[in-house]
Amino acid sequence: MARTRRPFVLAEAVTLLANTPVTLDAMLRTLPDDWVAAHEGGETWSPHDVVGHLIHGERTDWVQRARVILEHGEAVPFDPFDRFAQFAASQGRTLASLLDEFAAARAQNLRELAALRLTDADLDRRGRHPALGVVTLRQLLATWVAHDLDHLVQISRVLAKLYSDEVGPWRAYLRIISGAQG
Amino acid sequence: MARTRRPFVLAEAVTLLANTPVTLDAMLRTLPDDWVAAHEGGETWSPHDVVGHLIHGERTDWVQRARVILEHGEAVPFDPFDRFAQFAASQGRTLASLLDEFAAARAQNLRELAALRLTDADLDRRGRHPALGVVTLRQLLATWVAHDLDHLVQISRVLAKLYSDEVGPWRAYLRIISGAQG
Repeated sequence: MARTRRPFVLAEAVTLLANTPVTLDAMLRTLPDDWVAAHEGGETWSPHDVVGHLIHGERTDWVQRARVILEHGEAVPFDPFDRFAQFAASQGRTLASLLDEFAAARAQNLRELAALRLTDADLDRRGRHPALGVVTLRQLLATWVAHDLDHLVQISRVLAKLYSDEVGPWRAYLRIISGAQG
Repeated sequence: MARTRRPFVLAEAVTLLANTPVTLDAMLRTLPDDWVAAHEGGETWSPHDVVGHLIHGERTDWVQRARVILEHGEAVPFDPFDRFAQFAASQGRTLASLLDEFAAARAQNLRELAALRLTDADLDRRGRHPALGVVTLRQLLATWVAHDLDHLVQISRVLAKLYSDEVGPWRAYLRIISGAQG
């Protein structure tokens, strides 16, 4: 296989999913409040918002949808996911408490996932996304992984851009600040 | 100050710099070799390449350039940085050994930085970049931080894109895979 794609392997996905809370903790726990509340302007999200969003996903999305697929197949569409639930749920919470809650919720979900003892045949089972239509359990679990990484990209980008002015002429070399692809 | 910018504060920068080796360790140490050797095609870098690049920066770039500024000001330009040195230096090395070396080199550089006991006046001191011209010590140190974050973005993006096919229809919702801004 080319070095630009990996096939879905459940044990590998679980390794990546288990790494995310530890990674976020290492990146964020020691940062000043002004850094974790920073964002990219307008309605964009801060690191604090993102951790709240990830908690909401653990509570209502990934494993819950896996159960819907296993129990109902395509007959029952998933509940729509509320991308803005964290703004109420995280309000006034410290980042430390959100990181703790995310780590506990993720660990619990990985225990539940393990208890399902999914086979390759299970991974091919189909469910119905309310907007995207038919999806497989394998696609759902791959998306759980990629969604984590997408938000790690976002958090790193938000933090980097806070120094857009402070880096001076080096701005031209920093792809995330200059906006260059690479 | 707006939530989209932060002024350079040395203690905050040191916190961010100290977090990077722990973050990379959490993200990468447990991943299968095929994941850390993966890249975005062509001459793009793998996570393994990036860690090697960060080590080379610790050895030859940031603190060394700070010393050039403090000792020579604008009179002596920095040595150019070799962006490809890691391909020879990292060849055949395990990711675990690179992560260990990066953590040790970063810790040593942060000890050396602390020993300089930089004042605000020191941060205003100027040096000469071989291509960018006059830069300040403050800009150099801010760039050290933003450069770490730029590469955390890159590593997360490389990993996410490995599941571009596995996520199926969810591809449309994952900004890093779809290429959408957000």
